[in-house]
Amino acid sequence: MSTAIRVDEQARQSEARTASAPSPARRIEFSTQPERYRHWTLSIDGRIATLAMDVQEDAPLVPGYDLKLNSYDLGVDIELYDAVQRLRFEHPEVAAVVLCSAKPQVFCAGANIRMLAQSSHAHKVNFCKFTNETRNSIEDASAYSGQTYVCAVNGAASGGGYELALACEHIILVDDGSSAVALPELPLLAVLPGTGGLTRLVDKRHVRRDRADFLCTTSEGLRGKRAQEWRLVDEIAPRSRFEETVHARALTFAAQSDRPAAAGGVALTPLARSIEETTLTYDHLTVELDRALRTAAFTLHAPSGDLPPTLEAVHTAGARFWPLALAREFDDAILHLRLNEEEIGTWVFRTRGEAALVEAADRLLVEHADDWLIREIILYLKRTLQRLDVSARSLIALIEPGSCFTGTLLELVLAADRSYMLAGRFAESDLPPATLRLTPLNFGPLPMNNAGTRLTSRFPAQAEHMAELQSYMGRDIDAETADALGLVTFTPDDIDWEDEVRLALEERASFSPDALTGMEASLRFAGQETLQTKIFGRLSAWQNWIFQRPNAVGEDGALTLYGTGKQSRFRKQRV
Amino acid sequence: MSTAIRVDEQARQSEARTASAPSPARRIEFSTQPERYRHWTLSIDGRIATLAMDVQEDAPLVPGYDLKLNSYDLGVDIELYDAVQRLRFEHPEVAAVVLCSAKPQVFCAGANIRMLAQSSHAHKVNFCKFTNETRNSIEDASAYSGQTYVCAVNGAASGGGYELALACEHIILVDDGSSAVALPELPLLAVLPGTGGLTRLVDKRHVRRDRADFLCTTSEGLRGKRAQEWRLVDEIAPRSRFEETVHARALTFAAQSDRPAAAGGVALTPLARSIEETTLTYDHLTVELDRALRTAAFTLHAPSGDLPPTLEAVHTAGARFWPLALAREFDDAILHLRLNEEEIGTWVFRTRGEAALVEAADRLLVEHADDWLIREIILYLKRTLQRLDVSARSLIALIEPGSCFTGTLLELVLAADRSYMLAGRFAESDLPPATLRLTPLNFGPLPMNNAGTRLTSRFPAQAEHMAELQSYMGRDIDAETADALGLVTFTPDDIDWEDEVRLALEERASFSPDALTGMEASLRFAGQETLQTKIFGRLSAWQNWIFQRPNAVGEDGALTLYGTGKQSRFRKQRV
Repeated sequence: MSTAIRVDEQARQSEARTASAPSPARRIEFSTQPERYRHWTLSIDGRIATLAMDVQEDAPLVPGYDLKLNSYDLGVDIELYDAVQRLRFEHPEVAAVVLCSAKPQVFCAGANIRMLAQSSHAHKVNFCKFTNETRNSIEDASAYSGQTYVCAVNGAASGGGYELALACEHIILVDDGSSAVALPELPLLAVLPGTGGLTRLVDKRHVRRDRADFLCTTSEGLRGKRAQEWRLVDEIAPRSRFEETVHARALTFAAQSDRPAAAGGVALTPLARSIEETTLTYDHLTVELDRALRTAAFTLHAPSGDLPPTLEAVHTAGARFWPLALAREFDDAILHLRLNEEEIGTWVFRTRGEAALVEAADRLLVEHADDWLIREIILYLKRTLQRLDVSARSLIALIEPGSCFTGTLLELVLAADRSYMLAGRFAESDLPPATLRLTPLNFGPLPMNNAGTRLTSRFPAQAEHMAELQSYMGRDIDAETADALGLVTFTPDDIDWEDEVRLALEERASFSPDALTGMEASLRFAGQETLQTKIFGRLSAWQNWIFQRPNAVGEDGALTLYGTGKQSRFRKQRV
Repeated sequence: MSTAIRVDEQARQSEARTASAPSPARRIEFSTQPERYRHWTLSIDGRIATLAMDVQEDAPLVPGYDLKLNSYDLGVDIELYDAVQRLRFEHPEVAAVVLCSAKPQVFCAGANIRMLAQSSHAHKVNFCKFTNETRNSIEDASAYSGQTYVCAVNGAASGGGYELALACEHIILVDDGSSAVALPELPLLAVLPGTGGLTRLVDKRHVRRDRADFLCTTSEGLRGKRAQEWRLVDEIAPRSRFEETVHARALTFAAQSDRPAAAGGVALTPLARSIEETTLTYDHLTVELDRALRTAAFTLHAPSGDLPPTLEAVHTAGARFWPLALAREFDDAILHLRLNEEEIGTWVFRTRGEAALVEAADRLLVEHADDWLIREIILYLKRTLQRLDVSARSLIALIEPGSCFTGTLLELVLAADRSYMLAGRFAESDLPPATLRLTPLNFGPLPMNNAGTRLTSRFPAQAEHMAELQSYMGRDIDAETADALGLVTFTPDDIDWEDEVRLALEERASFSPDALTGMEASLRFAGQETLQTKIFGRLSAWQNWIFQRPNAVGEDGALTLYGTGKQSRFRKQRV
């Protein structure tokens, strides 16, 4: 009975707590810039950047724990994400990044355990998701941006510290008889490494599964030659030759890069944004919250005027270039809503503006896809849409007259769990009926985490239908055709539209948020799986499960008791 | 605080409850036979078998709920599993199976909700795992045994009822204006369909993900033409032509089968088994429990004498043929330990006997792989080893002098999370040092759920090494070579053996059982994913998570309140 009472109390507290927007002081803020970093230093020397972790102990994101031994919380990771983004856009000359520690003899102790122990379940899950996305973006930079990450492990790399190394292309461990890589989560905390460590061991580095098992049950980890032989690291070097080895390796990778040594970067200027109680406003994006219906209504706007006519003009426009500006705003809004508006369960997408301008923007991206900046913009759009795919929110697209779901913006319809397209006009409006338009951006450059496009995930193993869709590229697709092509879910007319949409949103709000999360995560990723989908779909789901179990978070659980000197008492059932 | 106290109490209760073996009355028994079925009838007419669900309301596995409307519990599913097995072995003439309901106007209402509501978390998870395995075995029969399952949906197929249909090769729905297929778990119970429904919709039947989303939020489901257009069923037929349509379709599938119409079946005679407080004894397998160390020590025995010299003799031996006898015993032991010994967290594997005889058995299987019975035996070995792979237990193989880890039995070493092979002899014994031997059974016929072999999952993307292993086929592999080839984890000598093994087992017993489950599930399946791994790895993990959430199982949770007329109150946070 006591459980039930507790649940009830939590539910009431939860309702009371988040019925309104978090105050600015309590809001988690994702935008920052190098001058404000407290935990990282970024320095650049020719083709090589050095990103040094130097976590300030007494600057946690929320009070209650010290960030000792380069352990991290979300605040530390927000800076890391910012640095990875800036390196890509502001530093075209950087062709390799050395990720290292500024503290002597310690690389990184992983996620801060006190922080985990005091966090809500939702925060732990959201924290892990964001850190996973940041590590994926590091791999994305090595794979596609010509910016290869080399990890210089100068001391203990433990838990999330070693997982950060695992996200780099090449790991060099100092061979000093004591520095080790370790994943001690299971023996010390009764949880899993939460940022892809298990998957990267066996699926990326091809560490033998029995050796991975041994590593993950050995809190002190492995060092030196054995760590290398087991593929846990790529290279070892004595302390006397450590720095020179790291530098030499970074130069080797840099030499293989196609990034332009002499190009000028694009400054990621601060976003113009205003946050009110129920409104979030950017230049090209507004979000309206309905707290009763628990929806966030996104409206994404097409370019408001002509696009830059040449590649040179795109570079000059920089962060003002519409696709980049929109990606940044959309990315920020997703992160804000995920962390600061946990009870807003449904995200509704509308677009507004000239489809022709969206199509023209897509054309610019395709035509100049080889340019370093355009490549970065496409990759950024890809990652932002992937962030949407793994967001634990119901996604609904509403396609109305005046909208511009074309190419890149059409991906929102394809990312949605469900879409409604008005057949015909609204009686009270003279806007022509809505249409969709496919562009080359829908057929490859913006893959999901499963490496397929949203179209192939929608139509798995249907090559003929995919060919038919290709033939529609560039044509206006009306509601009837969109329905026949399977691009939209429902096409009500003006008479039914309002009721049908409202009922869908009300119904969504009536369901269990947890069951929706599990259902959506299962239906969104048909077809092949990849390292990324294994991390978000398999590993994270297990971790979420474990994060609720008494053996981890109960009064006698290992995460709760860590550091108290008390012994955990585990329930012995295997489930 | 109340949570913590509750957890503590549960832990104590749990310790008290399972410190000894369950009494025979409380033990879940997996062996049965058609004469004892209470919920199914099996009839055979030439090439077509009819398996009709006719659940006896007042015969639940444990008291506390009625099995109304062909709803099922584990007891119903144990009979289904038995029937599927017997059809394969006892009825070579059966080339298609009609799965139907014996109740008018209702097909199957799915898993019994009262049963789920009153079950422990562990039982729910184990129940779902077993039902998933049974549905996979139905698909396996359609795909590989020439026994195609046709599902005749004569009325409402809801939740697990529709999921049972989804496991069949062809679904025919009666088109009577009311009969529907539905997955109402999310709207009614705040959980997911637990037996692969979501995955099979999008990954097997290629139902569009937005339509799947609609179906899964619509408790009344879809019927008739729309169900067919959406690919939810393959065919519809009016009630007047329903039976004839089903029969015609079964005959069509039967005509494509390669099963011998005139062969004699092999009777699956009752297993000779004795269960004591700490011992489980079969003809070729013994299991010793150590309740303090929480281990089950399996010893699998090689054939005790000569094998049948000819295929004809194999057929005459029938269920006494060693590979089949061992598969049945091993299968039964796994299921017994999973459900009846939840606190026995580590399964330790030893073998005993003549490696040459195990190799000879493998040779017989390979030589006559085209024979229907041999094919069934290989498929059964495959499924049993796959059951092992998804068991939530730590698996440790101990390779000692006198063992016979050859071919099929070597798969136990490769399935293990860790293995120890003695280098040299035991001082007190004159047995020669242990060796391993690879046979063709290690290179294809016994794939994991991920469709790769245990060797390719151990050495992903290492084709050269796989070729080297092939060259060792049929040779004795000593500890040093096994170590060099990466087939075993550790090779201690006589001096270290006892301590090293004991420490490993004690260490395993000291870890959180939940964290072990999540870690093992993540490390065992490197490489590609399939429908099966998506079900066990992604869908089940989400379901396990949801099965713990207050929105489902709290006092106000939907699963708890179902049927009471009271409204669930959900915590609104999206996680």
